[in-house]
Amino acid sequence: MIHTADFPKGRITLVGAGPGAADLLTLRAVARLQAADVVFFDRLVDPEVLALADARAERVFVGKEVGHHAWPQARIDAEITRAALLGRNVVRLKSGDPSVFGRATEEIAAARAVGIEVEVVPGITAASAAAASLLHPLTERGRTDRVVLATGTCSTDEEWSGLADLARPGTTLVLYMAMRKLPQITAELRRAGLAETTEVTICAQVAKRGERHLTSALGTMHRDASAAKITDCAVIFIRIAKAVGPNARHREELCEALPTSYS
Amino acid sequence: MIHTADFPKGRITLVGAGPGAADLLTLRAVARLQAADVVFFDRLVDPEVLALADARAERVFVGKEVGHHAWPQARIDAEITRAALLGRNVVRLKSGDPSVFGRATEEIAAARAVGIEVEVVPGITAASAAAASLLHPLTERGRTDRVVLATGTCSTDEEWSGLADLARPGTTLVLYMAMRKLPQITAELRRAGLAETTEVTICAQVAKRGERHLTSALGTMHRDASAAKITDCAVIFIRIAKAVGPNARHREELCEALPTSYS
Repeated sequence: MIHTADFPKGRITLVGAGPGAADLLTLRAVARLQAADVVFFDRLVDPEVLALADARAERVFVGKEVGHHAWPQARIDAEITRAALLGRNVVRLKSGDPSVFGRATEEIAAARAVGIEVEVVPGITAASAAAASLLHPLTERGRTDRVVLATGTCSTDEEWSGLADLARPGTTLVLYMAMRKLPQITAELRRAGLAETTEVTICAQVAKRGERHLTSALGTMHRDASAAKITDCAVIFIRIAKAVGPNARHREELCEALPTSYS
Repeated sequence: MIHTADFPKGRITLVGAGPGAADLLTLRAVARLQAADVVFFDRLVDPEVLALADARAERVFVGKEVGHHAWPQARIDAEITRAALLGRNVVRLKSGDPSVFGRATEEIAAARAVGIEVEVVPGITAASAAAASLLHPLTERGRTDRVVLATGTCSTDEEWSGLADLARPGTTLVLYMAMRKLPQITAELRRAGLAETTEVTICAQVAKRGERHLTSALGTMHRDASAAKITDCAVIFIRIAKAVGPNARHREELCEALPTSYS
């Protein structure tokens, strides 16, 4: 019988792998990967990202395509804590940013429950990478000053009824994992009174080989995306610009008096 | 007289510096900094980030504290394009992510207007870095599945009237540059019916020396922040969790069937 108390405890680091390209990892993420004894990764992590880990580190694949026997979350929680309790330095490598649709809470709680030290290293989320690639910022002075990150995946149909409230002038709506919900999204936003011509951009396979961009509009996005065969793993930007009104000039002046950037 | 057509054109790269710590830059950001002839940076960029640039690169400081003679945006646009037209490899180093409250649109447009190639390298935005540091993800299964990034700075008072619509159950509201608007924010969210006990966390000086965390609630955040002397350069998280209803179990099952992370 092994008494885990006889070993020094390991640690768990949830590392954001960014959306694809290995050079979108942070220096801190690379440092943690290089110090890992074991790396648990899932299907959306690019092989070239995994290659940044120490060659001697064990690699454990925890998930496959949707519906193809991904590990249940409880099993991931159990395996990463077991490895850390055996004294191993564990990296849980997660696509994008662990804090955005990354189920980090469950893994942090599992580590804490057994007294294992846990750290989160942030990653570039798909919205940031896609906006950079499109050369189209998420906020634009005088047009948009709010960003909403939402998902199409874990929502029941009734919950889409909240989308309309978020779709106010001045908002960039960014939808993750929502390609299968395009008809519902279109219907909801139409009911909210958005114009058929509302600007929509879809970025598929963000920061991966085969990245593609589609420029469309609310009224045609479903048809255009089908025609382009973009069905999965894409980020949808819906930009609802402010009307230019009598306050626009005042707003500009307010902004000019402030620091040139802070984000 | 210099004919710029006689020189090969330079390029402009808008590089996200992340919120502070140099090891939160991406590998791509570091590569661009090391290849730069000139780096234009503003007050929120940490000296240790700037140290990653080539020692021979010229450093140009474009902004100081609020109200202390920051360069107007038009001057920044003019100087970066002038340098690139002279054949220099220009990096415009911006705090956080250039696409989030970063005024990237103006600089991209300025570059394009004179035929200069422009690239954006995404950075870790303060919301991601603070969530990582707090070990409190921006989305949590069953509690929050939407993230709203908004700012307190460029909004006229009348525009706050939109905040209430964004504050729906299931939302993590992240406010940038909003410390001076705490009384207005509190009043607005109270009018929207949010409980006085709604969870609020404030992360000051994110990823910088002197980072501080304050846990509070809607009803007390202004008083608590004043007592803690947090007045500027902080990110405010307001978490409006979903009520646990009859659909909660169904939602969990939907999520379990899907990939373990995508962000």
